[in-house]
Amino acid sequence: MKTEIIVIGDELLIGQVVDTNSAWIAAELNKQGWEVTHIATISDEANDINSAISSAFSRVDVVLMTGGLGPTSDDVTKDVLCRYFGGKMIFDESVYEQNLRYFAGRGLQMNVSTRRQAEVPDVCTVIPNPVGTAPIMWFERNEKVLVAMPGVPHEMRVAMKGEVLPRLRSHYGDHDAILHRTLMVFRNTESGLSERLISFEASLPQNVKLAYLPIPGVVRLRLTARGCDEAKLSKTLDEMVQKLHEILRDDIFCDEDTTLAGALGKILKERNLSIATAESCTGGNIAHEITSIAGSSTYFKGAIVAYSNEVKEHQLQVPAQLLQQHGAVSQPVVEYMAKGVQQVLGVDCAIATSGIAGPDGGSIEKPVGTVWIAVRCGDSSCVECAHFGGSRSYIIERSTQRAMMMLIDMLLKR
Amino acid sequence: MKTEIIVIGDELLIGQVVDTNSAWIAAELNKQGWEVTHIATISDEANDINSAISSAFSRVDVVLMTGGLGPTSDDVTKDVLCRYFGGKMIFDESVYEQNLRYFAGRGLQMNVSTRRQAEVPDVCTVIPNPVGTAPIMWFERNEKVLVAMPGVPHEMRVAMKGEVLPRLRSHYGDHDAILHRTLMVFRNTESGLSERLISFEASLPQNVKLAYLPIPGVVRLRLTARGCDEAKLSKTLDEMVQKLHEILRDDIFCDEDTTLAGALGKILKERNLSIATAESCTGGNIAHEITSIAGSSTYFKGAIVAYSNEVKEHQLQVPAQLLQQHGAVSQPVVEYMAKGVQQVLGVDCAIATSGIAGPDGGSIEKPVGTVWIAVRCGDSSCVECAHFGGSRSYIIERSTQRAMMMLIDMLLKR
Repeated sequence: MKTEIIVIGDELLIGQVVDTNSAWIAAELNKQGWEVTHIATISDEANDINSAISSAFSRVDVVLMTGGLGPTSDDVTKDVLCRYFGGKMIFDESVYEQNLRYFAGRGLQMNVSTRRQAEVPDVCTVIPNPVGTAPIMWFERNEKVLVAMPGVPHEMRVAMKGEVLPRLRSHYGDHDAILHRTLMVFRNTESGLSERLISFEASLPQNVKLAYLPIPGVVRLRLTARGCDEAKLSKTLDEMVQKLHEILRDDIFCDEDTTLAGALGKILKERNLSIATAESCTGGNIAHEITSIAGSSTYFKGAIVAYSNEVKEHQLQVPAQLLQQHGAVSQPVVEYMAKGVQQVLGVDCAIATSGIAGPDGGSIEKPVGTVWIAVRCGDSSCVECAHFGGSRSYIIERSTQRAMMMLIDMLLKR
Repeated sequence: MKTEIIVIGDELLIGQVVDTNSAWIAAELNKQGWEVTHIATISDEANDINSAISSAFSRVDVVLMTGGLGPTSDDVTKDVLCRYFGGKMIFDESVYEQNLRYFAGRGLQMNVSTRRQAEVPDVCTVIPNPVGTAPIMWFERNEKVLVAMPGVPHEMRVAMKGEVLPRLRSHYGDHDAILHRTLMVFRNTESGLSERLISFEASLPQNVKLAYLPIPGVVRLRLTARGCDEAKLSKTLDEMVQKLHEILRDDIFCDEDTTLAGALGKILKERNLSIATAESCTGGNIAHEITSIAGSSTYFKGAIVAYSNEVKEHQLQVPAQLLQQHGAVSQPVVEYMAKGVQQVLGVDCAIATSGIAGPDGGSIEKPVGTVWIAVRCGDSSCVECAHFGGSRSYIIERSTQRAMMMLIDMLLKR
C-alpha cells in the first residue's frame, strides 16, 4: 500500500524545528510493508493544506497528516479538513470530558482556546488521544483515507501504534501477521555484505523480505515475514536467522533491533559485567549513550569525564609525567585512563577517549579529529588511534560509536 | 523571495535517516528574509524528481535541492536535471582534478563510480565542492533558478554558506546588507513576551523585523535589519537592543544566538569561573552539552557521572547514611553531590542531578519524571525538585536544560 505524509507547521518552514515525525511514521509503515512515496512539509495556510491534500490523493489512497491541530487561532487544519470532506464542526462531549480529566489530572484550568480542542468535524471518526488534548481524526471518502494527528511526537507515536496503524491495516483488509527479526552486523560494508548474501537472498521464501539498514560502522539486517500463520512465520524466520548466523558467524554482534549502546548493554547484562567510562574529548557522550538505554543502571556504574589534565591525574591516576611527556592525546594516557576508571569505580569493563574534537587545538602531528580510544575488560585491553573528519559534533559522535564498537568487538572475541 | 526545497533520498522515505538539511536551509534563508513555502521529500525515481521540479516551479522561482548526487547508479538526479534543462552530460576536467586531489589527500584510490562524479550537465554552472566529491550545480531557465547540492549535511552547509546564498542574493539583485541580533530571554512565555513588547514592536523602523523563536523555557528574540548602509543598520540595531534591555532587563540572559550550554559557557568565561557536573539521572548529558561548545575546555574541568550509590558515596562524598535514609533521589543527596564535585574537582560552579528517568524505578511518592537538581557557585546554592512527563529521553533532555537554566539564573542574580 502506498501512502503519503503531509507535515503542517510554520515552525518547520522557518527551520526552527526539525521534523522527526515523518521519518518515524515512514519507518513504522515500512515495517508492515507499506510504502511512503512522498512527504510534503507545508505551512498553516488553508490554501496550502487544501492543495497538498488534493495532490496527495491524486497519487495515493492513504494520507497521514501531522501538526496544525493546536488550540491557537493559527491552526486552521481542522476547519480546512471539515470543508474538504464536506462536513460541519460539532462539539464532541466525550473529547471535552476527556480533556477536562486531562487538565484536572495536571492541576490545570481549561480556558476558551483549550475548550476549542473538543470541536471536531461531523464527518470524521474521532480517535481519542490518551496523552494529549488534540483529538485524532479519521476521514474517509471514495475508498481514500486521511488521518490527522497532532504534531507533538509523543502524542503522534502513541496514536499511531495504539490506534492508527491497526485501523489502517484492518481497513485495507490486511490481516496478515507480520514478524520481524533484526541482526546487527559489523566488519562489513553494505555492498560487501550484499555480495556475501547473494545466494541467501535468492533462497528466501516469497513471503520473506530482507532489508539492509546501514549506520556508520554497522549494517542492520531486517528480515520481514508476512502470512496468516504466525507460528509458521516465526519458525521460518528462526531458520533464516540460523542461516544468516552460519554465513556471517561472529560478524553478527546483536540479534535485536537496537542502538550500539543497546547492543553493548545486552552483552554486558548477559555476561553480568559492569562498566564505566573515562572520557576526555567525548565529554560524557558515551555515558549519555549508555544511560539512554532503560535498565542500564544494572551494568553502568558511572563515568569520570576528565576534560582537564588535573582530573586525569587526580581522579584517574594518570601519572603527571606521562601527560607532560606524551600529551593528553596519546596512547599511554588513554590506556591509563581506562585502567584508572576501572580501578577507581571498581568495574569489569572500561572505555576511555582522548582526542581533539576541534575546531581549535589541532597540530601537524595531531590534527583535529585525532582520537585515541582504549577499551578494557578485566586484564584484556585494546587501543586504537582513529582519525575523523568533519565538525566537532561529528567527531564526538563518531568517537562515541567507535569506542562502543571496539568494546563489543573485544567482548565477543573473548 | 519565495523558495521551495526538494529533498531526494529513498533512505528518508523508509525513515532510516531524519532530514536535518531542509530545516537548516530554511533557517539560513529565513535569516536573509527569504521564505521557504514548501518542502517535498521524494524518492530517487526520475518521474518523481521531474514532477517535483515542475510542481515547485509552478509556485516559485527558486528551488534548492539536496541529495541524490552520490556516485552509485541509484542516484539519477544529475541525469534527470540534465534532461529537464535540455542539456547533455560532459566530463568536467576541473571537477575531476579536484576530486583526484581530494582522494589523494585521504590516501584513497578513485574508482569508476567515483570518476563519474566529474560528469555534469553542460547546461549548468558548476560550483566546486571544497569538502566532498559531488559538484554543486546551478541551473537557470526563464528567470528561474535550481541549485542541486549533495545530501551530506556538512557538504551542503559549506556550499550554501560559501557559494549558494551569496550567489542567490546577487542573482536576484538583493544587495542589501542584512544584520541580525539575537537575545535569549527566560522567565517569559512566548505569548507573555509578545504582550510586553506590543509598543516596542509598533515602534520598530520599517526595515527592522522581530522574530520570536521559542524552545522549552527560553524565547530567542531575533532582530533583523535590512538596508544599504551597514554602519547605520548596526547603529539602529544597537538602539533596538538597548530598548529591549530596558524593557526586559534581567530576563535577557544572553545577547548571542547560541544554545543554553553556549549561554552558560559565555557567562562562565566572562566571569572566569570553572565548572563541573555530578550527574545521576542525566547520565553525562549535561557534560556532553557543555562540551559540545567549542572552547569549553577553558571553563569545564570534568564530571563525575554517579549512576550507582557507591560512586555517589566514594567519588562524591555523599554520606552512606543519607543515601539510606532519603534515597538517592532526594534533596540532601543532590545537594551533597553538587558540593562533592565542587570540592573533588576543585571548581567554582557545580551542577548535580538525581532523578528517575524511567520507564521503571518510579513509586507513588517518587514517580517517573521526578528529578532533583542542585546548582552551586562558591557558597551559594539552589535546589529544586522538577517533575517531567514523557519518555526517558525527554526526561533526560528536560532535566539537562532545566539544570543549566538554574545555574544561569543563579549566576545572573549574584
